[in-house]
Amino acid sequence: MGDQSINNDRPAKRQVTTGAVGNSVKTWSSPEGRADIRVPFREVPLSPEANEPPVRIYDTSGPYTDPTATIDVAQGLPALRAPWLARRGLDTVPQARAVRPEDNGFVTGKYGVAPCPAEHVVWRGSEGRPVTQYEFACAGIVTEEMIFAAHRENLGRIEKDPDAAARRADGEDFGADIPEFVTPEFVRSEIAKGRAILPANINHPELEPMVIGRNFLVKINANIGNSAVTSSAEEEIDKLVWAIRWGADTVMDLSTGTNIHNIRDWILRNSPVPIGTVPLYQALEKVGGVAEKLTWEIFRDTLIEQAEQGVDYFTIHAGVRLAHVPLTANRTTGIVSRGGSIMAAWCLAYHRESFLYEHFEDICDICRAYDISFSLGDGLRPGSLADANDAAQFAELETLGELTKIAHAKGCQVMIEGPGHVPMHKIRVNMTRQLDACGEAPFYTLGPLTTDIAPGYDHITSGIGAAMIGWYGCAMLCYVTPKEHLGLPDRADVKTGVITYKIAAHAADLAKGHPAARIHDDAISRARFDFRWEDQFNLALDPDTARSFHDETLPKAAHKTAHFCSMCGPKFCSMKISHDIRRDAERQQGMEQMRESFHEKGGKLYI
Amino acid sequence: MGDQSINNDRPAKRQVTTGAVGNSVKTWSSPEGRADIRVPFREVPLSPEANEPPVRIYDTSGPYTDPTATIDVAQGLPALRAPWLARRGLDTVPQARAVRPEDNGFVTGKYGVAPCPAEHVVWRGSEGRPVTQYEFACAGIVTEEMIFAAHRENLGRIEKDPDAAARRADGEDFGADIPEFVTPEFVRSEIAKGRAILPANINHPELEPMVIGRNFLVKINANIGNSAVTSSAEEEIDKLVWAIRWGADTVMDLSTGTNIHNIRDWILRNSPVPIGTVPLYQALEKVGGVAEKLTWEIFRDTLIEQAEQGVDYFTIHAGVRLAHVPLTANRTTGIVSRGGSIMAAWCLAYHRESFLYEHFEDICDICRAYDISFSLGDGLRPGSLADANDAAQFAELETLGELTKIAHAKGCQVMIEGPGHVPMHKIRVNMTRQLDACGEAPFYTLGPLTTDIAPGYDHITSGIGAAMIGWYGCAMLCYVTPKEHLGLPDRADVKTGVITYKIAAHAADLAKGHPAARIHDDAISRARFDFRWEDQFNLALDPDTARSFHDETLPKAAHKTAHFCSMCGPKFCSMKISHDIRRDAERQQGMEQMRESFHEKGGKLYI
Repeated sequence: MGDQSINNDRPAKRQVTTGAVGNSVKTWSSPEGRADIRVPFREVPLSPEANEPPVRIYDTSGPYTDPTATIDVAQGLPALRAPWLARRGLDTVPQARAVRPEDNGFVTGKYGVAPCPAEHVVWRGSEGRPVTQYEFACAGIVTEEMIFAAHRENLGRIEKDPDAAARRADGEDFGADIPEFVTPEFVRSEIAKGRAILPANINHPELEPMVIGRNFLVKINANIGNSAVTSSAEEEIDKLVWAIRWGADTVMDLSTGTNIHNIRDWILRNSPVPIGTVPLYQALEKVGGVAEKLTWEIFRDTLIEQAEQGVDYFTIHAGVRLAHVPLTANRTTGIVSRGGSIMAAWCLAYHRESFLYEHFEDICDICRAYDISFSLGDGLRPGSLADANDAAQFAELETLGELTKIAHAKGCQVMIEGPGHVPMHKIRVNMTRQLDACGEAPFYTLGPLTTDIAPGYDHITSGIGAAMIGWYGCAMLCYVTPKEHLGLPDRADVKTGVITYKIAAHAADLAKGHPAARIHDDAISRARFDFRWEDQFNLALDPDTARSFHDETLPKAAHKTAHFCSMCGPKFCSMKISHDIRRDAERQQGMEQMRESFHEKGGKLYI
Repeated sequence: MGDQSINNDRPAKRQVTTGAVGNSVKTWSSPEGRADIRVPFREVPLSPEANEPPVRIYDTSGPYTDPTATIDVAQGLPALRAPWLARRGLDTVPQARAVRPEDNGFVTGKYGVAPCPAEHVVWRGSEGRPVTQYEFACAGIVTEEMIFAAHRENLGRIEKDPDAAARRADGEDFGADIPEFVTPEFVRSEIAKGRAILPANINHPELEPMVIGRNFLVKINANIGNSAVTSSAEEEIDKLVWAIRWGADTVMDLSTGTNIHNIRDWILRNSPVPIGTVPLYQALEKVGGVAEKLTWEIFRDTLIEQAEQGVDYFTIHAGVRLAHVPLTANRTTGIVSRGGSIMAAWCLAYHRESFLYEHFEDICDICRAYDISFSLGDGLRPGSLADANDAAQFAELETLGELTKIAHAKGCQVMIEGPGHVPMHKIRVNMTRQLDACGEAPFYTLGPLTTDIAPGYDHITSGIGAAMIGWYGCAMLCYVTPKEHLGLPDRADVKTGVITYKIAAHAADLAKGHPAARIHDDAISRARFDFRWEDQFNLALDPDTARSFHDETLPKAAHKTAHFCSMCGPKFCSMKISHDIRRDAERQQGMEQMRESFHEKGGKLYI
């Protein structure tokens, strides 16, 4: 298990969480002919009486759930992509940007988090050769990352299963183009069309590649990050590992305050999932929290700092233009995006166009050089139902559409961030307008929350909206935890948020008619009907909670094979009665057949 | 506070929960000219700096949240409806059915729950006069119950507010007919059309009337009930009070096992909300749990037993016909309704048509005599996505449509139960087919759950489906708790289930464009933007949780007026920045105006 402490001055408060999820087994599968590409899955073996193969589940948890892996956070994860990257003619950066005091908020002494000692060579793309997955895709080149992501999307199916077409036809996909089986070529073509991104900074070789787009499985993002008020480095690493354990496909590090450079180092070297950031947050820290002091130079330097560390996607609020700010004047809740409000303050202070907008091509050049995907921020998203779908929101969306074209022309990958707070009947138009304005670039929304009245339960108010917009075509759903609007989420909140969003994403996959989605549901439903309690627990998104809820009232081992649960008790178990009915019906049918056969043979019973 | 113990042999384990919800104030409002009809609301007073009137919220909690009320569960609640009922020429039933040993499962001695000592006169409708709300409605008569329910639906507005039309026009109601302001006459006409019910047994005078229909606020039901495996009478009363405290509009008592007659007595005498039951459960208990031993006579006797006690609506699984049972043979999860499986077992055992179907007119006669509303059970609802919208389910729905017509002809009120487990894209057709098959009789669904893979979180998997079907036109949503599929819910689970379903129902009201729904959202959003933390907590669906989540990281009193929370901290609070922007913009605008006015006056600053 190695040394898992993070700061030699301060012993780690907790170990990184390892071990299998429920009774599932970590497994790897390789696409045909590419034994060098090993795609992780977790398999749930079923009890012998099921007489069914294990159920294979998409696995975001990385080596932490591999019992054979040695986890040493000081050493970081294995550099899975290094051999692929080595063949691409990238430039090393001998004079990589050195860490500066302001990068960690001028922290000193015992309050400082030590740098992550894991080895990290900094790469940069050269001018003449393709660097980004978008450039490769447009050049017709299928990368290893695309092969990896394609195999992952199929949930390890090596070819279309016989029921794929039926499951596909069963859905309503609102004009999406979901294939029955995902090939690497399909991944390439989707990226080339700008309809998908594969966020993978060339300086994040530890990454297990994944793809985000409307025609793939709906993904979810979890936010972590210390804040000025609370949180520590140890907690952040643990939150990362914890979030991906339950299914977060990407993680955004939204840290502010001190130590953010070093904490980000620890996170990146230990993350198998794409890491996103909002570079503006760190830039603002560097100028003491005063928006007016922000400059393009400080921002640019921050982009390069984070690019070299390996951040996979940047939220850039370049759509908040000076002319949009007055559109928020009569809003009920003003501007609720942190980045949006910072940029609006900057624009108004100087009565000037946003430097992010004016320098957007320069930002593209940086993103292209490291293959950092854009997540074009919705700085003017609505913060209440009253402000949903208003002029400010849609004006920004139009700008994001313009910027998408520029970024593509520069060779960059782009996704678009979306709201926010939106009542159910106004969700669909968000999706259709985004597809239209942004040329089908992947949409990545925060919820949306479908009512404002339930602080403490905003994972649910937003899970409803998330499931719906995922169905309508949203590619990635940013989770909301129960603490939204109230405080910083803790470990339990992160898990609740991730599970809620896995539910939303999976519900969306089912509704769109993803050809492999329902395999999981059908397996658990058969287990339920057969009273295979252990299989039900193990197939649950959260096996621990399912088991503990059951065991609260029926803790004994014998109850794990009981043909009832405490909800209805033995006499009123409808499933038990259903089995009795079938058994009796079969017996009766058997008798009918015997009687018929007796008659066919001309027999007579009573003469 | 009186004696709140339930069984003199066994002291109550806990008190019934009383006291205000958060800082809200119990208030009453009377429709114009009817000071005798006092409709309860809870009002949330806002802090002085808000300079806004209190927010009035629909209140299901009954006298338990009235600080001036004396709660004595042995005495029961005041008989609110008694003066209204006294004027209707009902017959008293001098020879009311006496309690029999089998009614309480032959329980004896210390295991017995004593009868509720509250006074209870039994009434019965006479032949020649209208008894049911449907009969009154069809006769053009507006009852006190209709007046009460109408006033309640308006959330105490005494007339259309000026924004009602705009809020109404903002929604998408899928062809519903929601008025800007609900009049008693509208309630009458909806009931007469069979599009709404007002469940109110004449033997439940303690009831605070409410209306269920597509053109009213979406309602929610909470199930309580002991089971053979666990639970006690004390817990059931407390669950009732607890469920209505958080917003349950009706409560179904699904008790099985012993003492169910007496427990039901305690529940009815202490319930301000309609109580529903599934009489088949008790009938089955009377025959020792053996479905084949059920007879029409035993069932009929059970109906009368419960009718005289005051049950407001009966789930009757008369749609499970013999011919439907083979349609479930190839299902993944068979029959998952307890009542459905019991009736299917009975039909198959005798190879005979269901006695519920054959005696449906007799059942109507009983229901009419006491004004018990039908909740026509969906005994063949799908128990997995694999079985959603199948032939068995829709065959039963057609039968329920036939039965609706019969019940209306007999003068009864009818709603229709619906699924179950349904993926998002198959929810809408459930609603449209139900409206079509059942002549727009109110639909009352369990969820539906939108995926099968998350036991432990089925309040969320189903909350998604519930919000959607509520939007599409479902009138009442039966809650699902986190324990669904795993065990019996406890107090915390009941609260989580109710709050989740209040979210779903309110999200649906907003999306349909209910003219008063968004008042609550807008009030909390303004409080949020103004950093009025106390107002945010008090306006939350669950003030206690909102407050405790906030206080986990910022417990001090000073933080209740702080212009930030621990989620983003002070420097990154977008709302704080928004305020700064507005202040600066106003200052700037002021200067611009001064300059313009200076120029207009022909002044010159520099010469």
